[in-house]
Amino acid sequence: MQRIMMILLLIMLPLSVIGKYLHWNEVALFAIACAAIIPLAGVMGRATESIAIHSGPKIGGLMNATFGNAVELIIAFFALREGLIGVVQASLTGSIIGNLLLVAGLSMLIGGVRYPKQKFNRTIAGTNAAMMLLGVVIALVIPAIFSLSHPGTIDIRMSVGVSIVVLILYLLGLFFSLFTHRNLFIYTENMEEEEAEWSVGKAIGVLAIATVAVAYESELLVHTIEAVSQKLGWSEVFIGVIIVAIIGNAAEHSSAILMAWRNKMDLALEIAVGSSLQVAMFVTPVLVFLSLALGNHMTLVFTWPELASMVLAVFLINFLAQDGESNWLEGAMALGAYLIIGIGFFFL
Amino acid sequence: MQRIMMILLLIMLPLSVIGKYLHWNEVALFAIACAAIIPLAGVMGRATESIAIHSGPKIGGLMNATFGNAVELIIAFFALREGLIGVVQASLTGSIIGNLLLVAGLSMLIGGVRYPKQKFNRTIAGTNAAMMLLGVVIALVIPAIFSLSHPGTIDIRMSVGVSIVVLILYLLGLFFSLFTHRNLFIYTENMEEEEAEWSVGKAIGVLAIATVAVAYESELLVHTIEAVSQKLGWSEVFIGVIIVAIIGNAAEHSSAILMAWRNKMDLALEIAVGSSLQVAMFVTPVLVFLSLALGNHMTLVFTWPELASMVLAVFLINFLAQDGESNWLEGAMALGAYLIIGIGFFFL
Amino acid sequence: MQRIMMILLLIMLPLSVIGKYLHWNEVALFAIACAAIIPLAGVMGRATESIAIHSGPKIGGLMNATFGNAVELIIAFFALREGLIGVVQASLTGSIIGNLLLVAGLSMLIGGVRYPKQKFNRTIAGTNAAMMLLGVVIALVIPAIFSLSHPGTIDIRMSVGVSIVVLILYLLGLFFSLFTHRNLFIYTENMEEEEAEWSVGKAIGVLAIATVAVAYESELLVHTIEAVSQKLGWSEVFIGVIIVAIIGNAAEHSSAILMAWRNKMDLALEIAVGSSLQVAMFVTPVLVFLSLALGNHMTLVFTWPELASMVLAVFLINFLAQDGESNWLEGAMALGAYLIIGIGFFFL
Repeated sequence: MQRIMMILLLIMLPLSVIGKYLHWNEVALFAIACAAIIPLAGVMGRATESIAIHSGPKIGGLMNATFGNAVELIIAFFALREGLIGVVQASLTGSIIGNLLLVAGLSMLIGGVRYPKQKFNRTIAGTNAAMMLLGVVIALVIPAIFSLSHPGTIDIRMSVGVSIVVLILYLLGLFFSLFTHRNLFIYTENMEEEEAEWSVGKAIGVLAIATVAVAYESELLVHTIEAVSQKLGWSEVFIGVIIVAIIGNAAEHSSAILMAWRNKMDLALEIAVGSSLQVAMFVTPVLVFLSLALGNHMTLVFTWPELASMVLAVFLINFLAQDGESNWLEGAMALGAYLIIGIGFFFL
Repeated sequence: MQRIMMILLLIMLPLSVIGKYLHWNEVALFAIACAAIIPLAGVMGRATESIAIHSGPKIGGLMNATFGNAVELIIAFFALREGLIGVVQASLTGSIIGNLLLVAGLSMLIGGVRYPKQKFNRTIAGTNAAMMLLGVVIALVIPAIFSLSHPGTIDIRMSVGVSIVVLILYLLGLFFSLFTHRNLFIYTENMEEEEAEWSVGKAIGVLAIATVAVAYESELLVHTIEAVSQKLGWSEVFIGVIIVAIIGNAAEHSSAILMAWRNKMDLALEIAVGSSLQVAMFVTPVLVFLSLALGNHMTLVFTWPELASMVLAVFLINFLAQDGESNWLEGAMALGAYLIIGIGFFFL
Repeated sequence: MQRIMMILLLIMLPLSVIGKYLHWNEVALFAIACAAIIPLAGVMGRATESIAIHSGPKIGGLMNATFGNAVELIIAFFALREGLIGVVQASLTGSIIGNLLLVAGLSMLIGGVRYPKQKFNRTIAGTNAAMMLLGVVIALVIPAIFSLSHPGTIDIRMSVGVSIVVLILYLLGLFFSLFTHRNLFIYTENMEEEEAEWSVGKAIGVLAIATVAVAYESELLVHTIEAVSQKLGWSEVFIGVIIVAIIGNAAEHSSAILMAWRNKMDLALEIAVGSSLQVAMFVTPVLVFLSLALGNHMTLVFTWPELASMVLAVFLINFLAQDGESNWLEGAMALGAYLIIGIGFFFL
């Protein structure tokens, strides 16, 4: 698997450079950029993990919680700089529902094909569900509903205020899982031990190079979205919610499914839910602050279809997880919900 | 009970034929058609059950899952043919909330008067709750919210796409309960043994005759709705949501309450929840496909009051069932919610 | 604590009388009225408790359930008489979310600082959650959504109908906890024994005097709200939702936090959730009926921001309580949600 990814990377990276200077067709360039980002995200994830292991569990947990979605952040940064606020919000939406429905759904389905019933810690599932209700539902529904009566001017101030609260709660959540209630989360350490690690020096080097490469490819991706949208007849929102999100989360997909296959449902769900919490409660507030600096204000007021998709995804995952057990049908339901939402965005 | 139903049938069926040809008052004809459909639905239910028992649990389960709401399907078919799409959607809404709130509520209340606490399988309740969230909430909220921005033209294509996903998930749910996780649902077999059965021949004959009679009465019902609405000052939506739904579900009411009274809460809830899942995930998609054939397109875009009622009913039943126990107060709450929704539709 | 409250009362009560006749600045008068109502509410609470203890658990429970939120009712009565329906609805909203998020959140946070995990009865939490879904969510969402299509004339009739159903369910809930399922709620009797009691004579005397004083101060509060809103630049809704609600619930705050600190999470949650149920299912319907008598019709149609805040608060508290355990992070989440909603109302 890792070998295939490496080959993909070594082909796509030079191709994207050549293609850009020879002004190839934009759809081809978009596809090449996507194909390059997938292995780069995997490499960055592995490098972050390796540094995390060497730094001990607390600094390591902090690192994972900060750099775990670096790819999403980089793509969003370039889109934000171009003023493509709709694309940023669409890709955040896509990342959240992709992790909650597609990653968790595939894990439950594929794990469920092998084991009739898979168990996981209900206390953590409950805490995560409440965090999600706060960071996704409350933090986004309040600005959307409250801005209905006074649209426009006040939104950015309200969004900054809400973003600060959400970011503080995210940090408190880290403090909870790394310090005061560490014992609940013991299993997450096992995850790190599963994978072969790199030396700190190698990891930092790889991380630095990969970050530059992702930046390069992300810029290409963002620049070709408009043309792709016109040529294929897909809306930019559909590309943001479905295509960009699947690329950005490819690494999470493969690890979570592997964990589910090994009957470690706790780890699989932690990857899926933890990643969407990170996007909602860390990446999103940071982008709101960045947007202030860049002058292209991004508020927390998402479109109603985006909002509805995220809210429904949070409720479905809570309904599925509240009994601390999963089976293949629950996985199929999550995938079905993802498909229904995808159909909706396709026809939008 | 069955004797009374038989007498009712033998009086109402000829009365409706006579009344129609003598052009009786439409309100009277509507009432006669209603009074005839109730015993016919009971007879059809019993015939389906009898065939199901003789076919073994798997084919039987499949039969129940397909023909269990034949009456709703027949009434909706005639309304659809007349282009009364609002009445069809109203009666689907009414059937779903009627099963979830009225049937389940009466079961919990009446069972709860006899027993202080009644238990049921939490795993099944959880799976059913998630199915309901998918088949009722997600499958209907997504089309409604997404069509806000682009009303009209795209709705039917989106609705067909969503209907296909929902129908596949319904079939996967059957596969789950009849094959891969059959052991969880053992108790449903007991239900069938409870009732005296008919021979396959008798059952098929009764089913054929009753289906024709129901078709006849349904046509009469649909044709008189408009006049009843004008004469009594009730909206067609109120008639569809409350009156038609109660008639269509009369058989479910009596069996579910009987089961609750015998402290078989698992069966009572399975009848109530299973029936509303069937309406949402089998009858509704089939009607969307039928509407294409008939040329009177019915989308999955319901009115906001209908949508709100169904969403709230699903959440209430999940809140009530999530601890695997019921008592009379929980039954009273479900009935109270039904009453509140009924008041809403009455004043609409 | 009680001594400080007494001193506060003995200073503020005369000050408010003097200030009113000397036509002091309205902001000062508003602050004095607020400062007087806090200890008055405490005194009324203690007097009600004392009478309740002497009357035995059943009459006592009934008394608490009726007079427990007398202060809110009195403030609302004067606002209603002045036709300030928006202020009444805002203070009802504030009282419900204040109890659910601020009181329950502070209890979970402060209790959670002392104990890593606090347990409470899941069955009661589940019943309360369902009651809240019915009394807050269903009873308010149905009128709001249904009035979208036909705003205006029909709202008050629909609201009266829904209010009657809600009030009956509240009474059934009392019957459940005081009679048929008394054993589940045994612990609430301990609460009463905790506090030193007054004789019935003294309690009735104090209650009578305090009620008059609260009436006096409430009138002052209501009369100065408009001026305070203009001078401080805060909207009347913000004052109603946040300021008035915190004052009206000050007594609940201190008792609930004390119980949480003593690791009696059942009692702490009963105070928080019980009080918001009382506001939603007793105070609100009574105000709807009163508004008919006063001629200033108040319907159950709240503003969308108010409705969204209450609905989200109910879901968050259910997500936090559904596992029957709390910790400091869950408390922080409830407070974070309160802060987000507060930010929303501040910028409205």
